[in-house]
Amino acid sequence: MEKPSLHIVKIGGNVLASEETLERVLNRFLDLAGKKILVHGGGRRASELSRRLGIEPRMHQGRRITDADALEVAVMVYAGLANKTLVAQLQGLGCNALGMSGADGNAILAEKRPVLPVDYGYVGNIQEVNTGLLANLLNEGITPVFCAITHDKSGQLLNTNADSIAAGLAAAMARDFDVTLSFCFEKPGVLRDADDDSTLIPHISRQDYLSFQDEGIIHSGMLPKLENAFRALEAGVSNVEICGPGAFGKDEGTLLSL
Amino acid sequence: MEKPSLHIVKIGGNVLASEETLERVLNRFLDLAGKKILVHGGGRRASELSRRLGIEPRMHQGRRITDADALEVAVMVYAGLANKTLVAQLQGLGCNALGMSGADGNAILAEKRPVLPVDYGYVGNIQEVNTGLLANLLNEGITPVFCAITHDKSGQLLNTNADSIAAGLAAAMARDFDVTLSFCFEKPGVLRDADDDSTLIPHISRQDYLSFQDEGIIHSGMLPKLENAFRALEAGVSNVEICGPGAFGKDEGTLLSL
Repeated sequence: MEKPSLHIVKIGGNVLASEETLERVLNRFLDLAGKKILVHGGGRRASELSRRLGIEPRMHQGRRITDADALEVAVMVYAGLANKTLVAQLQGLGCNALGMSGADGNAILAEKRPVLPVDYGYVGNIQEVNTGLLANLLNEGITPVFCAITHDKSGQLLNTNADSIAAGLAAAMARDFDVTLSFCFEKPGVLRDADDDSTLIPHISRQDYLSFQDEGIIHSGMLPKLENAFRALEAGVSNVEICGPGAFGKDEGTLLSL
Repeated sequence: MEKPSLHIVKIGGNVLASEETLERVLNRFLDLAGKKILVHGGGRRASELSRRLGIEPRMHQGRRITDADALEVAVMVYAGLANKTLVAQLQGLGCNALGMSGADGNAILAEKRPVLPVDYGYVGNIQEVNTGLLANLLNEGITPVFCAITHDKSGQLLNTNADSIAAGLAAAMARDFDVTLSFCFEKPGVLRDADDDSTLIPHISRQDYLSFQDEGIIHSGMLPKLENAFRALEAGVSNVEICGPGAFGKDEGTLLSL
C-alpha cells in the first residue's frame, strides 16, 4: 500500500523575525496540499527577551548554553509567544493548527545532553517521537506546529535545536508516511558564496557534501543543518531540501540526496 | 446511555505560585480516575515578568487592561512557561498531558470584548468550544491542560479569565459528558470570614448566593467565580465546587446548586 504523503516544513528564527517574510511563508504553507507539520525556531526573540530581562546569553564556541534562566526564556518565547502567534495566524488563514512542544502528549522524548566534554545545560537530544499521536492528529485534519522544546518524561523541559526536531520528526514519521522535509531559511538554499544568491548549489549528494566541507565551501551553521538533512534521508525520508522563504516544494532550493 | 464522566479542575495563580501546594494539587489530580481536564491561571508570574520588563500593569477598577504588551507577556507566561512546566510535571508523574490554548485546534473561539463602556484591550469572551476535538483527545487517553488564552479565528490571540475558560469548557462538554467542575484556590472554599477557614460555607444555592451578596458576605473576586459556577450548573454541569488545593472531588469545599 502506498504511504500517505506528509510535508514537514521547518522555518528559522530569521524568517519569523520579518512580518512580510513570514506572511509569504505561511501563504506558501497553506498552498501545500495534504498532511503537514510546521516546526519553528525563535532564537532572535529569545535573545531580545533575555537582554530586556538582563540575562546575558552564555555561549561556548558559538553555541548557546541553556541554564535555568535561559530555559525559562526559551519556553516563554518558543512555546509561548512564537508558537501561539503562529497557531493563531494559521487558524485565521483557515489552517487547523495545533501548537505543541515535545512535552505535549509526550510527542518528543529527549534526554539531557551529557555534561562532558561541555555542559550545555538544559539541552535535549531526541530519543523518541510519538508517531501514533501525530498520525492521529494528522488524520483528524490537524496541522501540528512544533516549537523547539522537548522533555525527558521526568518533569524536565529541554531546549532542542529546531532543525534537529524537524529532522527527528521526519525520520520517525517516514516509517508510515512518504515524507518531504524542507528547511526554510533566509537564503535561497546552500550557496557557494553566502553573499551571492546566484551561487546556489541546486543539488548536493553525501559525497559532494564531504568535498564541499573539505574545500571550506560549507561551514559553520550550515554543517549541523546538512548533518540533520542527511540523517533524515538515511532514515527513509523521501525528499529533503534547503530553500528560501516561501520556496518549499518548488524545486527552487538545494535538493539533497545520499 | 449513561454519559461518561469528566472532571474539570481549575487551579488559580496562587496555587501555581507555591511548589509545595502545586505538588499537592497535582498528586490529587493524578488520583482522579477517568477523563479529566486541567485549567490554570498564572497571574502572579505575569505581573512579575511585566515588572522585570518595565511594563506597568494597567488596571481599571481592579481589572487588568490587556494592551499589546500585556498580551505578549500573558501569552509567554500562561501559554509558555506555566503551561509547559505543568505539562512536563504531569508527564513526569505518568499523566499524558497535552497543553493547549484556545487557538490550538480552534479549541476555544472567543470574541474581543466590546470596547464600551471600558476598553479592556485584547480580552476575549468565549463563544464556542470545539467539543469534538476535546472528546477525541480524551478518548485517546490524553489530558488537555488549558491556559487562559483564546483566539478570535482571525489571527488575534485574546486573554481570557481562567475561571471563565473552566466554566465554558464544562458547560460545553456537559452535552456529552457527566461533568464535575472544581474551582481550586488557596482557601478551603467560600468563607463567611475570608480570614477564618473555620467559617467555610459547605453549600450555596442560587438563592443563598443572592442573600450572601446582599449581606456583603460574598464580594469582590468571589462574585465572578460564583457567576461562572452558576452558569455552568445552568448549562447542565452535574457538580460544581469551590475548594482548597488538593481537596477537589472530596466534598470538603463549598458545593453549589441551583
